[in-house]
Parts: sequence; structure tokens; C-alpha cells
Amino acid sequence: MIVYERPVRFEDVDAAGIVFFGRFMNYAHEAMEHFFGGVAGGYVDLITRRKIGFPAVHVTCDFRSPLRYGDVVRIAVSVAKIGNTSSTLRYEFTRADNGASVALMEHVTVASDLVSLQKLALPDDVRAHLELHRH
Amino acid sequence: MIVYERPVRFEDVDAAGIVFFGRFMNYAHEAMEHFFGGVAGGYVDLITRRKIGFPAVHVTCDFRSPLRYGDVVRIAVSVAKIGNTSSTLRYEFTRADNGASVALMEHVTVASDLVSLQKLALPDDVRAHLELHRH
Amino acid sequence: MIVYERPVRFEDVDAAGIVFFGRFMNYAHEAMEHFFGGVAGGYVDLITRRKIGFPAVHVTCDFRSPLRYGDVVRIAVSVAKIGNTSSTLRYEFTRADNGASVALMEHVTVASDLVSLQKLALPDDVRAHLELHRH
Amino acid sequence: MIVYERPVRFEDVDAAGIVFFGRFMNYAHEAMEHFFGGVAGGYVDLITRRKIGFPAVHVTCDFRSPLRYGDVVRIAVSVAKIGNTSSTLRYEFTRADNGASVALMEHVTVASDLVSLQKLALPDDVRAHLELHRH
Repeated sequence: MIVYERPVRFEDVDAAGIVFFGRFMNYAHEAMEHFFGGVAGGYVDLITRRKIGFPAVHVTCDFRSPLRYGDVVRIAVSVAKIGNTSSTLRYEFTRADNGASVALMEHVTVASDLVSLQKLALPDDVRAHLELHRH
Repeated sequence: MIVYERPVRFEDVDAAGIVFFGRFMNYAHEAMEHFFGGVAGGYVDLITRRKIGFPAVHVTCDFRSPLRYGDVVRIAVSVAKIGNTSSTLRYEFTRADNGASVALMEHVTVASDLVSLQKLALPDDVRAHLELHRH
Repeated sequence: MIVYERPVRFEDVDAAGIVFFGRFMNYAHEAMEHFFGGVAGGYVDLITRRKIGFPAVHVTCDFRSPLRYGDVVRIAVSVAKIGNTSSTLRYEFTRADNGASVALMEHVTVASDLVSLQKLALPDDVRAHLELHRH
Repeated sequence: MIVYERPVRFEDVDAAGIVFFGRFMNYAHEAMEHFFGGVAGGYVDLITRRKIGFPAVHVTCDFRSPLRYGDVVRIAVSVAKIGNTSSTLRYEFTRADNGASVALMEHVTVASDLVSLQKLALPDDVRAHLELHRH
């Protein structure tokens, strides 16, 4: 499990005054980029030099309590499943101040060649890092 | 079923060159706002005057093929379930040019008082509109 | 002058309840993409096939009155200056319902090769379209 | 001068492969929120409890070199001018790795009551903090 924290930004809320539900995907992706910090070169090197990406094929999210401007969200990232080309990340969103549950998201991605968008076996270093944080 | 179309915007893609997965939530919400055009005053009136919102409590999305800059996405909105306070919208994303399947999303929302964030019975006009487009 | 209209989106407002100032750049870029509809293939073809982009080198914006969720903004695009590689677009933002002035933006871009990011002379068809809409 | 750093996010780039010019406003606003950390309660307290906001009335930005995914941007915030109700923040964007100039932005805001959107004299604590960081 790797933990990532970030404040709710001024422009993350919507006309209902709470964080727009789609932003949770942005928050999760930030947490995933942070998670991949454990692979040499990180997510940036995967994308920009190795040309390996992890497009989403499936996402599920339960929203339990709203976030507002001023809140800080803590996202605990763990790995629920590891396949040959796919992996499932699990994001547990809580409020940093009191630990209250905010959301729970699962995110299945498939390792892909960014030029052809064909799927790839998970690279060894990525697989090893995923194994390390398996739920 | 109500259909909404929009082009992929220049800034909707990510560093992998395809539409960021979180943007599908923005696209779905736009389609939902369009869908609520069938209620007098539309979504804007619900939010700004009636102070009734529809926060997401659950979202599921299958991503089937990527979108790129230049694509136009067609979103067919229908209603999968209607509860007392909740409703489930279903969004079928296809490419406008060839009808290829892009994504399928389900989005459960709960009618809520935007001041207290307490849930509400679905207003009659909203319920009637949902019934009209039940899958 | 070419006119583009779009509603303020649910997630375009910020925690102060008005459209986030940075969104005006997104709105202007949408209007610019619409403006380039007058060049064969449009902005999409320039970017994706011809690999010619128009990165901003200078932006100025006066904000005159706020936009809120539910407003529709009308953007009149015209051309203030045409250089060898650069051009200056002018965007006049008004409210679609009453014509009230919302913002005035100027946006200087430089035609650039998207592979090398080196500047280019304005392509003839782009220059002709700009001349047609010179202020 | 107060310095704020942040990485370019995966979804901050556009179809031309560089950071979308409008995102610089988001980056600047983040830097401004950080800057206001020097006022008791910070920007969050101003917005959510004191109901005082700082809508932009004028923005100017020079873009000098592009940012790409993987870059880290450093933003030095200082105060260029202080009026009765208005203030001008200056943001100098450089690359964190080599100090190369990326952009220079000026941002004039007017202290405003967020309920009425009428302008206000700068609160004393805000003014004192601005004076401290005058250019």
C-alpha cells in the first residue's frame, strides 16, 4: 500500500459545491503516478521513453461522502489483481483529517504499446512492483 | 434514449495521446445535462433554483476502444433503474463516424437537497422524464 | 468575425461559484478550433496530419463580468494582426442572452512544426482564412 | 517571493503534446493558494468562511518555452502592485531542473464579497501579507 495525499483544488468543485465526481479519476491517476514512483524512472519514463502506457479498460467507483474545497484527500493505493497484461489497482479515498471514508475505486488497466496501442505482457519491473503492493 | 454528440477537444487527450479516462465522466455529465433538457428548466434550474442535485454514488465504466483528438463521440443516454431517491443512467459511447463501441458507463445518482446534502424522493417531473426513457 | 456559442458547464465553476478564470482559455481555444473550420480539414487536420500547431506566445485577457452555471457565452473571434509566423486572435466574450460584455482576450500564436517545435511561415490557406477575418 | 513547485500532470498536455496554455492559469492559481498560506487560515478560510474572493480582472501571460509531461515547474510568486481593492500578482515560471524561463504571468485581482460580488477594500491581514512580498 502506498499513500498519496492532495488538497482539493479551488477549481475541483462543481456547480453543486462539491468535488465533481469525474475528478476522482484525476485524483486516482495522480495517486497511480505516485505509486509508479517505485519503478525506476517512474511513470514518466514508462510513458515518454519506454512508450508503455496503461489505458483503463474498466473502472468502478463507490462514492461514500462528498469532498469540498478545503478538504485534503488521502488515497491508499494497493493492487487487487495481477494478470498477464492487466492489473487492477484499488484506491481507498479517505479524509486526511478524520479518516472518514470518501470513496473506493477499482481501476483495471492493460499494459499497452503506446505506438500501436496493442497490449503487452506486464514488464518485469512493473510486475515486481505490483507484486510488492498486492492487497 | 436521448442522444448527445460532441467532438473530442484539443485538451481532452493525455500524455499517451488518447482521451484521458476521467474525461468520460465529463462527457457523461454533459450528456446527462442534455438528457435533463426534457425536464422544464433543465438541469440548470434544478441546480440553481430548485437546489436539487444528483451526486454520484456509484459509477462503472467499460472502456472498449480509445478516442483521439478529431473523433466525435455519440452518447446514447437511457435509464436502467429508478428507485425512490436513486436512479441509474446508462451511457453508451460510440464513434459518430462508424458506430464503433467506445465505452459503456452506468451512473447511479441520488437526488439530494444541495443545502443539506440529504437525499430526497425523486421529484415528480424528474421521475416522469426518467420513466419515459427507461431502457 | 466568426461566432461560437457554448453553455457554461456544471464543472466549469470554482469554489467561488463563478467560472474559473482559466476556463476562459479553454473557451477561447474551442472558439479558435471552430474558427479554423474555415480552413480545409480544420484544426484537427492541421494538428494530426499536417503536424502544424499554434502554441500561444502571449495572452491578455480583461474580465468584465462573471459567468455562472446556466449562462451561455457567445465568443466573437476576429483577427487583430497577421505576421510572417505569428497571428493575433481577438475573442470578445458576451452573454448570449443579453449581449453584456464578459471578457476580451487577445491571443498571439506562432505557427510551429509540432515535431521540432520550430516556427514556420503561416501556411497559405491559414493566412488566407486569417485575412478574411481580419478585424 | 514565495516559491511553489509542481510536476506537469499526465492530463495537462494537449493534442500537440505540450502543456495546454490555459493550464498555466491553473498552475498560477495553485501557486496563489500556496502564497496565501501566509494569511491565517489561508485561501480556504477566505473563500469558505470569510466569503472573500479574488476574481481576476486582468491577466497577461508571456509563454517562453513549452512544458511537457515529466517536467517540474517552479513558480515564484511576488506582488507587483497593491491598490485599495486590487492587487497584482506576478508569477515567474521556470523549469525546476535547469532554471530555464517558461512563462511570466501577471494577474490582477479585486477583493470581492462572494455573496454580492461587490468589491471590498483589501482586508488588513491580506494587505500586510501582500506588502511583505512586494516585488
